[in-house]
Amino acid sequence: MDITVAIDCMGGDHGPHVTVPAALSFQKSNADVDLVLVGLKDAIEAELRAHGAKAGPRLRVHHASEVVLMDESPSLALRNKKDSSIRIVANLVRSGEAHACVSAGNTGALMAVSRFVLKTLPGIDRPAIISALPTIHGSTYVLDLGANVDCGPEHLLQFGIMGATLVGAVEHKDRPSVGLLNIGEEAMKGNDAVKRAADLLRDSGLNFIGNIEGDGIYRGEADVVVCDGFVGNVMLKASEGLVQMVRSFIRQEFMRSTLTRLAGGIVMPVLHAFRKRLDPRRFNGATLLGLRGIVVKSHGSADVFSFERAIERAADEVRNEVLHRLMLRFGSAEAEEAT
Amino acid sequence: MDITVAIDCMGGDHGPHVTVPAALSFQKSNADVDLVLVGLKDAIEAELRAHGAKAGPRLRVHHASEVVLMDESPSLALRNKKDSSIRIVANLVRSGEAHACVSAGNTGALMAVSRFVLKTLPGIDRPAIISALPTIHGSTYVLDLGANVDCGPEHLLQFGIMGATLVGAVEHKDRPSVGLLNIGEEAMKGNDAVKRAADLLRDSGLNFIGNIEGDGIYRGEADVVVCDGFVGNVMLKASEGLVQMVRSFIRQEFMRSTLTRLAGGIVMPVLHAFRKRLDPRRFNGATLLGLRGIVVKSHGSADVFSFERAIERAADEVRNEVLHRLMLRFGSAEAEEAT
Repeated sequence: MDITVAIDCMGGDHGPHVTVPAALSFQKSNADVDLVLVGLKDAIEAELRAHGAKAGPRLRVHHASEVVLMDESPSLALRNKKDSSIRIVANLVRSGEAHACVSAGNTGALMAVSRFVLKTLPGIDRPAIISALPTIHGSTYVLDLGANVDCGPEHLLQFGIMGATLVGAVEHKDRPSVGLLNIGEEAMKGNDAVKRAADLLRDSGLNFIGNIEGDGIYRGEADVVVCDGFVGNVMLKASEGLVQMVRSFIRQEFMRSTLTRLAGGIVMPVLHAFRKRLDPRRFNGATLLGLRGIVVKSHGSADVFSFERAIERAADEVRNEVLHRLMLRFGSAEAEEAT
Repeated sequence: MDITVAIDCMGGDHGPHVTVPAALSFQKSNADVDLVLVGLKDAIEAELRAHGAKAGPRLRVHHASEVVLMDESPSLALRNKKDSSIRIVANLVRSGEAHACVSAGNTGALMAVSRFVLKTLPGIDRPAIISALPTIHGSTYVLDLGANVDCGPEHLLQFGIMGATLVGAVEHKDRPSVGLLNIGEEAMKGNDAVKRAADLLRDSGLNFIGNIEGDGIYRGEADVVVCDGFVGNVMLKASEGLVQMVRSFIRQEFMRSTLTRLAGGIVMPVLHAFRKRLDPRRFNGATLLGLRGIVVKSHGSADVFSFERAIERAADEVRNEVLHRLMLRFGSAEAEEAT
């Protein structure tokens, strides 16, 4: 299968300086994936030249005259910037010229534009943001990470079904386990929406394992963890802050004296291995799940290594036919016809 | 000022084996604090003997014939176990025989019994759980950590006022900064309750610094962080799980080969210092805030070191007159009379 991924080269804190080299690096190890680099043509081509590369049939440049700023209002971006790189990558997915798109841009704008251009899948009220997180033994997927607040029980059920479908596809798991994030393992605990969501999930035919608490995420108790976007976003951001704090503590302790600095030098390979395992960049690339197309959001501060992971995620979801599986799961006639 | 703290010796995973030696160790460095050890007399006295200690006027033993189990229903514990150690420590605080109590028991039962026996402070609808968490530069206090779900804006406002009062007292800060946990720094983001709570906090006279995101907690952006108990509990538990994962990664990396084990030996003091800074035991002791008495909850799995920190916290809150300040803050006539 030939895969094409459209890349918003202007998004994120670094724009083409990061997105273009990441695209080049990605294509080196993924010769079967065509890329469309979207954004200000001059800026993209300058960056290609700087890396001794040039555009071609498998690495096209698609000009977009506007850029959505990181702090711009999503509704204004949607209304006023019809030739922004975010808008164009979504258009390319809708028209079928690309199978997926990737952006490190403004999350709110990416979601608003994607919803408007691509629409949601039949049966889905609200798209959710899903991403993998590391666990002691591997990884787990959590959704929603911030697209929706005040989620009702039926939204949480949809998240569970979408999450299980995605994880089943990309992790090649038959019946991924689904846990509901809650504050106690007993069914009596929790808020109203979560209590009712538990009943729905129990009757859903999913491999629902019940409530899990916050620490269960990193213990890898479930393949998929379902939660309200407010809760998921706070959990994710707090985890990021905690990892930063841990790294800063380690640095401080090893910099304390000449002796500890020397010791730090000796254990450098071990510290390096440790940091790598905890490196949030490895898990970069969150999917906006529930749209009629694959849209992957990279962290705004992503570097080249990290943005490449987001492109990989997009290609991987296309390879594993995530969209088609979602359509089948939600009983779409379109998917039946395509089969 | 003479201080008396009542200790539920039966709570937690280890009961008197942990609580009694912790009490003995605490009293060694806090000669001004009297302790009442509450629980099964024989078990407590056996533990005292095992440590070459005995009861006396400053270290009394108060028999309680019943024990609330860790997984017991709070309402059943409240109704049926009127001579439980949890009930007795609360009674001692209500009668004035103790200024504060500490328990590592069942959180739900401790909260239910404390609310029933002590009642809430005037002006407080719901007591909240508050605890200190480490930050890059010191510590921050977060509430609610799980006593309340589905909090309305006025509850979040009360949490802010209570939190600021407690932190002002025990950290000797004049106008502690208060942040509202949210999913974006812009006021437009967030769920309904949080948006309306921001308005209330802005007009409250508190040193309200606005919204903070999850990573702001560990960056120490605010002295007090206010949130719904569901969100706070998930955040706290996820952080605990993440710290466990980090420690397990470090152990695994250093145990990988003879060489890395040797390296681990060399950097042992540095690793030890690092672990100490990240040690959740140092922050053990969460206060049930908003009751007519000081009630401190220890982690159920607390060891001796950890449980002693919870006793310290209780004594510290008495020394700094947290209860009196709360009554003044909420305009209680009782506090005026007592002044």
